[in-house]
Amino acid sequence: MNQDYIKPDNWSIIEEGFDVERVKSSESLFSIGNGAMGQRANFEETYTGPTFQGSYIAGVYYPDKTRVGWWKNGYPEYFAKVLNAPNWIGIDVEVNGEKLDLHQCKSVTNFRRELNMKEGWYQRSFTAVLANGTEIEVKATRFLSLDLDEVGAIRYKVTPINQEAKVVFTPYLDAGITNEDTNWDDKFWDTYDLSHNGNTAYILSKTMKTEFHVCTGMLNQLFVANEQVDASPKAETSGTSVRLSYEAQVAKGQSTHLVKFGGYTVSLNHKNEDLVSASATVLKQASESGFDALLDLQKKAWSKIWEMADIVIEGDVKAQQGIRFNIFQLNQTYLGKDPRLNIGPKGFTGEKYGGSTYWDTEAYCLPFYMATKDQMVARNLLTYRYHHLNKAIENAEKLGFTNGAALYPMVTMNGEECHNEWEITFEEIHRNGAMTFAIYNYVRYTGDYSYIPEKGLEVMIGVARFWHQRATFSEEKEKYVILGVTGPNEYENNINNNWYTNYLAKWCIEYCIENLNKVKGEYAVDYKRIIEATNLHQEEIDGMLKVAEHMYFPYSEKHQVFLQQDGFLDKELITVSNLDASQRPINQYWSWDRILRSPYIKQADTLQGMYMFEDKFTKEEMAKHFDFYEPYTVHESSLSPCVHSIIAAYLDRMDQAYTFYLRTSRLDLDDYNKEVEEGLHITSMAGTWMSIVEGFGGLRIKEDKLSFTPRIPKEWKGYTFNVNFRNQILKVSVSQEGTSFTLEGNQELTICVGGKEFTISPDSLITV
Amino acid sequence: MNQDYIKPDNWSIIEEGFDVERVKSSESLFSIGNGAMGQRANFEETYTGPTFQGSYIAGVYYPDKTRVGWWKNGYPEYFAKVLNAPNWIGIDVEVNGEKLDLHQCKSVTNFRRELNMKEGWYQRSFTAVLANGTEIEVKATRFLSLDLDEVGAIRYKVTPINQEAKVVFTPYLDAGITNEDTNWDDKFWDTYDLSHNGNTAYILSKTMKTEFHVCTGMLNQLFVANEQVDASPKAETSGTSVRLSYEAQVAKGQSTHLVKFGGYTVSLNHKNEDLVSASATVLKQASESGFDALLDLQKKAWSKIWEMADIVIEGDVKAQQGIRFNIFQLNQTYLGKDPRLNIGPKGFTGEKYGGSTYWDTEAYCLPFYMATKDQMVARNLLTYRYHHLNKAIENAEKLGFTNGAALYPMVTMNGEECHNEWEITFEEIHRNGAMTFAIYNYVRYTGDYSYIPEKGLEVMIGVARFWHQRATFSEEKEKYVILGVTGPNEYENNINNNWYTNYLAKWCIEYCIENLNKVKGEYAVDYKRIIEATNLHQEEIDGMLKVAEHMYFPYSEKHQVFLQQDGFLDKELITVSNLDASQRPINQYWSWDRILRSPYIKQADTLQGMYMFEDKFTKEEMAKHFDFYEPYTVHESSLSPCVHSIIAAYLDRMDQAYTFYLRTSRLDLDDYNKEVEEGLHITSMAGTWMSIVEGFGGLRIKEDKLSFTPRIPKEWKGYTFNVNFRNQILKVSVSQEGTSFTLEGNQELTICVGGKEFTISPDSLITV
Repeated sequence: MNQDYIKPDNWSIIEEGFDVERVKSSESLFSIGNGAMGQRANFEETYTGPTFQGSYIAGVYYPDKTRVGWWKNGYPEYFAKVLNAPNWIGIDVEVNGEKLDLHQCKSVTNFRRELNMKEGWYQRSFTAVLANGTEIEVKATRFLSLDLDEVGAIRYKVTPINQEAKVVFTPYLDAGITNEDTNWDDKFWDTYDLSHNGNTAYILSKTMKTEFHVCTGMLNQLFVANEQVDASPKAETSGTSVRLSYEAQVAKGQSTHLVKFGGYTVSLNHKNEDLVSASATVLKQASESGFDALLDLQKKAWSKIWEMADIVIEGDVKAQQGIRFNIFQLNQTYLGKDPRLNIGPKGFTGEKYGGSTYWDTEAYCLPFYMATKDQMVARNLLTYRYHHLNKAIENAEKLGFTNGAALYPMVTMNGEECHNEWEITFEEIHRNGAMTFAIYNYVRYTGDYSYIPEKGLEVMIGVARFWHQRATFSEEKEKYVILGVTGPNEYENNINNNWYTNYLAKWCIEYCIENLNKVKGEYAVDYKRIIEATNLHQEEIDGMLKVAEHMYFPYSEKHQVFLQQDGFLDKELITVSNLDASQRPINQYWSWDRILRSPYIKQADTLQGMYMFEDKFTKEEMAKHFDFYEPYTVHESSLSPCVHSIIAAYLDRMDQAYTFYLRTSRLDLDDYNKEVEEGLHITSMAGTWMSIVEGFGGLRIKEDKLSFTPRIPKEWKGYTFNVNFRNQILKVSVSQEGTSFTLEGNQELTICVGGKEFTISPDSLITV
Repeated sequence: MNQDYIKPDNWSIIEEGFDVERVKSSESLFSIGNGAMGQRANFEETYTGPTFQGSYIAGVYYPDKTRVGWWKNGYPEYFAKVLNAPNWIGIDVEVNGEKLDLHQCKSVTNFRRELNMKEGWYQRSFTAVLANGTEIEVKATRFLSLDLDEVGAIRYKVTPINQEAKVVFTPYLDAGITNEDTNWDDKFWDTYDLSHNGNTAYILSKTMKTEFHVCTGMLNQLFVANEQVDASPKAETSGTSVRLSYEAQVAKGQSTHLVKFGGYTVSLNHKNEDLVSASATVLKQASESGFDALLDLQKKAWSKIWEMADIVIEGDVKAQQGIRFNIFQLNQTYLGKDPRLNIGPKGFTGEKYGGSTYWDTEAYCLPFYMATKDQMVARNLLTYRYHHLNKAIENAEKLGFTNGAALYPMVTMNGEECHNEWEITFEEIHRNGAMTFAIYNYVRYTGDYSYIPEKGLEVMIGVARFWHQRATFSEEKEKYVILGVTGPNEYENNINNNWYTNYLAKWCIEYCIENLNKVKGEYAVDYKRIIEATNLHQEEIDGMLKVAEHMYFPYSEKHQVFLQQDGFLDKELITVSNLDASQRPINQYWSWDRILRSPYIKQADTLQGMYMFEDKFTKEEMAKHFDFYEPYTVHESSLSPCVHSIIAAYLDRMDQAYTFYLRTSRLDLDDYNKEVEEGLHITSMAGTWMSIVEGFGGLRIKEDKLSFTPRIPKEWKGYTFNVNFRNQILKVSVSQEGTSFTLEGNQELTICVGGKEFTISPDSLITV
């Protein structure tokens, strides 16, 4: 736990003081990204202490050869990994002949980092006494431009304070990088061209196997006492790096700074042969604007993001900082402009988990992006899966399914499965249901039904076919059963009749056929195309519906709850509160078999389903299930507390809801799991947003209308959030006294608050 | 399948003709061993075609760092691997300046291999025309001495047949070897001294990490026209090898041969500093006897083994060859002299599976060694596990068990678990029951109760404690349940209430307490020592008995069978005969999840338990279970058909019994699984022996007496086997007409045949 280390602030993440042990954690926390690229908060200058260097480009990956102990048929050959990209931020700094390295300085004082979330920049400043006695002040400011998303900018300023100094800046590009998590120490990059010209330099590299070509470029400007000087840098190239050296002689107290523009142009967006000229163009554009002007654009761009996405919390600065950190990081990771991209579990802040796409996107991130962005963004997230439908069909074929059944991968970059643990890869198939649910959720929220005939129905048919084939008939139970699965609770493997999976399977089939009929009636041309493409016959439809109708659900009469799976009641039902604290988290202290036979639930499982299909259950049923399962839930997944928080709020148990909320909102800032140095938990951040908007705010879509049941934790004075609903922005302010709504748009909106309907006019305020 | 490739012969394995594609398979089939070391049938001379070089020393292993895709708490750090040892068989041969290499010769004719099982030697002969036109005949004979088990001998004879020839033999030692199955390409051996003197040479190497020191030595003799000549070889050493060169000029039709004695002395048996002198001593002893005299001793030693272990089959030469091959290979692998050794699944014929010890030893091999060797051998096998008791307790502690509960490893070399698949390592815990069952089986067969107070009871207490702690109480069932296990059928993982496991657990507890009471009454001193060592209290005993008494067993009233596990009847119960043949074996064609949710049984599971505890069930119950489970059994483990064969025989279904027998007896000779090149299935060979002796012969121990229910397949004229029973040898001959018994011993023996008692006098024959 890192509690109280990060300074409380409404808009910034602030670290004060230099602690070698915390460098790697802070590199994660102060990460920056612009949706197209991102990087850990590594120092620009040489640092010989423990560090985890990371710079990443969206969509650029490497298929690392699978490493397993015991091969199982069906495992993928490769694990697609987020790829550490060439370093463009490096600036070696020499002062009076001595290299600046915070790990070697006589002293480092006034060390401070600030990540300004409101404006989208990161700054580091400190005073250092070098071994040669020169004392300097350094201030380095950096951002990745939202406007020019192939460019980042650094202003690195040095001021000698006890004597005059010769300062040598050596900005460089280095493509000789590796991944921390390589399986076989493969070389991931091949560097094939280096060039420099005046203040610019470029490196052309391509990834092995996948052959993504990347031009890493830089353009530098030298300033002495804030005046740009015409510098002729000395250039030096090695096999994989280019270095330019700039000398400045400055008096005591006088400052010099280097502005470095750098970044990547990538073959995803340019022809290979145009990469250098594209880089030159964009760097020139940035440098002609200049650092300050580009930063002004950055502030404006972030201001626009916040306008839609911000949540204001009054009376609790740590909660405020926490929620903004979550919203900020989500926006740094994914902006929804490009349907080829998705939301990696670590974003651009680390390499763990590889891949870019988990069911997290559909289950947790989609609601955030639907409510805080133009609906095109959510549509792009759905389209990503539509583009992967053929791969999902291939994936199912590898597991023995036929006739267009689709199984979406557990982890993927390009649609192919890349995970390799049989109990997850082959058995955590509930993920497939999330694809259909996301479509339903999107249409319900946006009202954009057109997505279904255009793209969604084909996905839904592939998914329904999978469930149809995957369920088998039990003569014993005279019902359809789904054997050998892993539910959302990964602390159970290879179980039979996971209620969540069975429920989702039944629902996916029914929703698919319901929409098939609707499309048949209302979109005849699309229907014809889809039927031809999928070759779906009535006999198969009848078979699907039979499975849905006769699906088995494990139920306990005694407890009046659906059982998480067959045999759940055979476990030793000792609640978490009766578990020795020294055994927590159990995933660190217990062997896997012990975890599996325990009743402990890693993340919401049955409750995940009841959350998703709240309307199908009474409040009493929800309470019964919550009371039954919550005592066994250890929340050892970052995706767990948010769902419990939302349900607790729904059940008017605000204290509990608030406790769960706290656990999710500052997970990384307070480093609950002592692992933040590996990167941030990006996708779970969307869960934090949901805890407030769906949990406290009680946002639902009911009968095509926005509905709210606002509640407020007693610890807060008030909170405000915005939602984009069908191209109008509704601002919702909840205080201990009541809730007010303001509409920014051009037509009336009828909403439901606490069960009653209200109609709001544009630019007016109503209070309930 | 390899059917009909090996020539049928009563006593030898014979290959005729040279087939590059078969070299690796034949290297396995013609392997030789003497219990202390063993080797694949690699060519002595250079061979540049596909080959799998392997020479192994009993008890010498390397802990290879674990390689897994996804780490689970409790996994061992290392996997102990059978270690490829320095090569001492190599003899480069040059004829008229041309190197002999069967992969490069103009022609190879008359190629023949023979493994003479009666006498324990291996011979290879061929005629080759070299690229330079010289035609030669070669005959190479080799054996690993049973008398001097640190020595092997080779006689390598060359006869030029179309012209005179200068023949240069270069025998060498080479310690620059690797394992085929290294996880991280580690170097396993460190060679630290090489020396040579006249006709001898030595290499000292030690294994990395485990620091086994090994001296690999050789002593050569050159003969021309069968006369030993005084040769002064030229010596050459490199970093890891020593080569001695011998020249002989021979006339056309005249032969020359090299006799090479070689082998290992090992720090398991000598002090490190004595290894070279020990090697020198034993090589001198061998060479002074000479090749032929040593070979005569070999024949005598094997004759003694066969006296006790042979099974003669009349009227079916392939069955005869098959059963002798199994008996021969078991004896090559393990002779029971050293309680530190055990029976590796591949013996000395390959590297697959690593480790040396599986539950195969207790469940399959023990009966063979009890009946065909002095009872000390079986006692050594039990003692091996007694010595590992503390490691088994540590192993259980790693999984959260306490208070002296012991979990014997799935795979081991030194008692530590070295397997790393959670569903096996942590869950295939029925292996623990086999430890207690083996003690019971030993005492039942030998009458040597003393083993229990001396050593056995402590093992049984550790095992019983494990079951006590591992079972948990189900409030739902009001019974003790055992959740999350893998049974003998590894095509089910993480199942609940595997009948076999639950049954064995209950029995282990009851048998332990029964013996505890007996030891208390009859061995007071031992009892005191054991109670002090184990700190076993009445309360714990009561707890154990409660678990045993209230153990849950899944049962189907409808089918009147115990169910393999909870939920077995929910599966799609399509019999194997209705499975598309193109899908077999399913482990090659189906993904793991599909296998797991299918009803298909890899190897006897419920039936394994009914086989072990036959007396507890009626014949009708056995038949019901056999009829229920056999149709779903795919026998994709080499350990499966033997149990089904024995039960089928017991049920008087001899045609079926014979079919299963055939499948096990020539598994390797006919290469059913197309994998014999990886090595032989040593431990399953004991199952083949059981199929005849327990299956067809119907041998059981009933009320402390040998009991038989002889049956004979209609394809055979007769068969004869010997069993050592309490230090007398009983020869049993079964023909279509009746059964005769001859006793070699010094006291009367009362046996039971077909339910009736007969008393046999020593050296007399009775016919029933």
